[in-house]
Amino acid sequence: MATPAANPLISDRDVEFLLYEVLNVEALCALPAFAEHSRETFDMVLQATRRFARTRLYPSYRAIDANPPALADGEVHVHSQLKELYRGIVDLGLLTASRPEAVGGQELPMAVFTVATTYLMAANLSAYGYVGLTLGAAHLIEAFGDDSLQRTFMTPMYEGRWTGTMALTEPQAGSSLADIVTTATPTGAGHYLIRGNKIFISGGEHDLAENIVHLTLARIDGAPQGSRGISLFAVPKRRPGAGGLVDNDVHAAGLIHKIGWRGLPSMAMSYGENRDCHGWLIGAPHRGLAHMFQMMNEARIMVGANGVSTASVAYHESVEYARTRPQGRPLGNKDPAAPQIPIIEHADVRRMLLRQKAIVEGGLLVVVATAQYADLAAHAETEAERARAQLLLDLLTPVAKSFPAEKGFESNALALQVHGGYGYSSEYLPEAWLRDQKLNSIHEGTTGIHSMDLLGRKVLGSAGAALAALGEVVGEAILGARAAGVDTAWCEALSAALGEVATATQSLGALGDPAAMLRHSVDYLDMVATAVVAWSWLRRATAAHAGLDRSDADGDFYSGQLAAAQYWFATEVPRIGMLAERCRDNDDAYERMRADWF
Amino acid sequence: MATPAANPLISDRDVEFLLYEVLNVEALCALPAFAEHSRETFDMVLQATRRFARTRLYPSYRAIDANPPALADGEVHVHSQLKELYRGIVDLGLLTASRPEAVGGQELPMAVFTVATTYLMAANLSAYGYVGLTLGAAHLIEAFGDDSLQRTFMTPMYEGRWTGTMALTEPQAGSSLADIVTTATPTGAGHYLIRGNKIFISGGEHDLAENIVHLTLARIDGAPQGSRGISLFAVPKRRPGAGGLVDNDVHAAGLIHKIGWRGLPSMAMSYGENRDCHGWLIGAPHRGLAHMFQMMNEARIMVGANGVSTASVAYHESVEYARTRPQGRPLGNKDPAAPQIPIIEHADVRRMLLRQKAIVEGGLLVVVATAQYADLAAHAETEAERARAQLLLDLLTPVAKSFPAEKGFESNALALQVHGGYGYSSEYLPEAWLRDQKLNSIHEGTTGIHSMDLLGRKVLGSAGAALAALGEVVGEAILGARAAGVDTAWCEALSAALGEVATATQSLGALGDPAAMLRHSVDYLDMVATAVVAWSWLRRATAAHAGLDRSDADGDFYSGQLAAAQYWFATEVPRIGMLAERCRDNDDAYERMRADWF
Repeated sequence: MATPAANPLISDRDVEFLLYEVLNVEALCALPAFAEHSRETFDMVLQATRRFARTRLYPSYRAIDANPPALADGEVHVHSQLKELYRGIVDLGLLTASRPEAVGGQELPMAVFTVATTYLMAANLSAYGYVGLTLGAAHLIEAFGDDSLQRTFMTPMYEGRWTGTMALTEPQAGSSLADIVTTATPTGAGHYLIRGNKIFISGGEHDLAENIVHLTLARIDGAPQGSRGISLFAVPKRRPGAGGLVDNDVHAAGLIHKIGWRGLPSMAMSYGENRDCHGWLIGAPHRGLAHMFQMMNEARIMVGANGVSTASVAYHESVEYARTRPQGRPLGNKDPAAPQIPIIEHADVRRMLLRQKAIVEGGLLVVVATAQYADLAAHAETEAERARAQLLLDLLTPVAKSFPAEKGFESNALALQVHGGYGYSSEYLPEAWLRDQKLNSIHEGTTGIHSMDLLGRKVLGSAGAALAALGEVVGEAILGARAAGVDTAWCEALSAALGEVATATQSLGALGDPAAMLRHSVDYLDMVATAVVAWSWLRRATAAHAGLDRSDADGDFYSGQLAAAQYWFATEVPRIGMLAERCRDNDDAYERMRADWF
Repeated sequence: MATPAANPLISDRDVEFLLYEVLNVEALCALPAFAEHSRETFDMVLQATRRFARTRLYPSYRAIDANPPALADGEVHVHSQLKELYRGIVDLGLLTASRPEAVGGQELPMAVFTVATTYLMAANLSAYGYVGLTLGAAHLIEAFGDDSLQRTFMTPMYEGRWTGTMALTEPQAGSSLADIVTTATPTGAGHYLIRGNKIFISGGEHDLAENIVHLTLARIDGAPQGSRGISLFAVPKRRPGAGGLVDNDVHAAGLIHKIGWRGLPSMAMSYGENRDCHGWLIGAPHRGLAHMFQMMNEARIMVGANGVSTASVAYHESVEYARTRPQGRPLGNKDPAAPQIPIIEHADVRRMLLRQKAIVEGGLLVVVATAQYADLAAHAETEAERARAQLLLDLLTPVAKSFPAEKGFESNALALQVHGGYGYSSEYLPEAWLRDQKLNSIHEGTTGIHSMDLLGRKVLGSAGAALAALGEVVGEAILGARAAGVDTAWCEALSAALGEVATATQSLGALGDPAAMLRHSVDYLDMVATAVVAWSWLRRATAAHAGLDRSDADGDFYSGQLAAAQYWFATEVPRIGMLAERCRDNDDAYERMRADWF
């Protein structure tokens, strides 16, 4: 059996490369918002986080996966180790690291914060899940709640004493949030009475913290139907009362047995069975969905990071396995007395490992670059820079969310395959990460939803502005690559790929009929994601060339970067033209298919 | 929750179509070997099998998956329902259905037998596993054992009283069977003394039957090293002794916790700890691997059927879910008061369902057509027909084995995705089938091994004869399609695809260096499989046109066939040219990649 402690989770050398040689995140420190920061403060956060991830979180993963919690008498007792693990993450300062000083934070750039969290996610996805949910819930109140609501609900969450949830989904309203029916009745006493049922509420009930705040979507009595009649409420498990916290009539009604993320219970929740569930309106009435969506980019980048991290830990495990597992001999060596070789010496095993590397490291750059655009959208010096960054953030978010989920799942399956028969056993971890990964194509919007968001809202909705902005930054990357001596064939292939994306987009945009335009949106997403990852590999190749020019001390690392870039350009980039043609041809097989024909 | 009983497992209408409208299996009855058969006898077997699968096997699936057996005191007690389920399958006559009358069988064509077994596999893969293993083991003794060995070991297996296993893998010898070290010492008393360790022995220990016969690979003392020194032995759990069966010193040493097939324990076995493990040589000394490989086509077609069946049951579950789950409204309908529509009305959901259909039904035809070539290779009237069928059987077997495993896994993931958040819960079955499916790319030779078998041994090894034979039958199919009025663009696309396969093959064959030739073998397999499935969809489309011409009574079924064919030609066939180019370009990224660069 492999020794879990040896798994690096995320490659430190690659993180250093990505942050300082590819993305130059130090440049962010020149902006007023990040003036307190430097490479030293970034590295301190990374160092503390990766140490905690490796020494504390990762060793607990297997036990927590193997012993999911149960619901008994309305209570969920999570794995005994989770309480101190959560406390440990809080003590690292990660709940507020990316928040401003005004709320007790360090205003760490999202790009650096995102990288730091990948170590935690790779180590123990569900343990990190509590942090991500709490941060998201507190951030909503920070953005839209008044001082009193912030003091009451946000502060205890940021302090790590309470946790948060996002309570959107109802049994009849998943992808279709417009169909939410949970009600909120005004009382005149500052709060509303909430009644209804929610489902798939991650962290909806547990014994990790003294209280849980459910950021809940509901309709105020008399509100318009549909998505413009939904409001956002803070609904605590226990509300502040006369003598301290009292029960707030929101209870766990059921526990969904998830196939992964097994340290983080997914709950069905019942609100107001005794008509005594208080909720406090966050932001403006009927603007709940809009408020939520304003925070969506962050939540979706987090899901992308989940996907990359889950693929990364499995990638490293399979590299180590392949280096140490002897089996077979080189092709053409028929001497049975010759010793067996490690399977990493077989080309097809290296294919599976290199494909994983290309997905994991290419995906990581997409996720972190998207987070960097979030930093720039909020804090760049000029309005024009902020606007361009916002366009790119909006455009790249569905890619950063969906590519790691879809290709990460394939990558996780390859990690299992590299382990052969052992990979099919629960005594090895690749199967657990494969289970964990599958959620990422479903939660925070399915891949289908994101494909329509990308094509409909982001690309066509911006009337070409978003794609034009992408074309600019990719064009800059190509110039840089040429200057650094990167294979010109790759530069030309990426230029051509962008051209394919543009003509496919024009062709779809000209159709007029929304159903026809969006029919191949998943192909469109695949095409754009493949091109965006090609851009990422070109940037990596550029920095690798520069690194090799500086010295040959790190030749192995840089050579690996160039080989993975070569792989992506040889194997994936040719798919872009094919996908563009599929979009342009706009075949109608599944549009025509009728329910009775299956 | 969906009602499990409603799942048809495999579509009866599609089976009827495939056997009688596409493959014309009735024509086999004109051959002497199958003269006793007719469509009526075929349908009787199918009818009995599907009834048993639906009413008995399928309802037990969930409980058996949820309660895998444990090893205690060297014994494994399998789920209590399995004993009578196994007895039920035996009573259907399936252990000997495909065997000749001489051993108590019915000599049912493999094509029909294979279809019948898909119902059982789709219903409960691990319950069927005992049958497949026992049949394979008994068949080996039927082929290579003398009368006495047949009486002693084969007969009780065919009668369903004993079960069989295939004991090949050892901890250091999985894909590399040449490295087997289990020993066999002659005794002069007709048996050998066996000593060694095996791992991943499916059904290696259980309490379903009174005895287990392990068909075991071992080396006779002094045998040559490598694959030419391996012999095949029958090693019973209990051997015939003075007063009946006595312990034969082969014991369960461990149980591997598999992530699927959880009714069928996978065991580590220890032979001869007390130097009293008797084994009986089957066939010629040192010819064990060759004997095994002579039976491999059948075993691999069975794995292909496992893959198709596991994808099929999930496909039908997701179609039913999509027909009944309301969510959202048609694109462009913004009226929140309008009722929600079943998700099957969303194009992207139909895309996921149609892709599954294309994989499942296309894959089923590949598997059954390959089985039909097995029938013809053994029983066709002329030597020339048998030789051509054998070439096609050998060529198609790695495709029939690997396509359902690889694309079936994708299909199973789509079935989960269609179920949304519910799909991520173990309260719904798609996740269980996804786990079951993953084994099929690993056991009976990994996908990588089969890709090298296809390109190296089958295509290049036959010096073009196998591809030429494929070209002939595909050419006949194209003529038939043109005559039936199938879209000529599809006919031309398939012709062009075969041309791409041919040029890629020539290009690889010209390389000389085995490492360079086989570098892209997985791409080659993907290319050939995509073309073979396109051939299958062309055959289906041809028969569907004929059906529509006969009457419009069954219009929905035939329209579904044509839509799935359209999907495959629009979506997958364009990949063939891309894969051919990838083979021709023969990019060396992972060949160059070094272990230290990861």
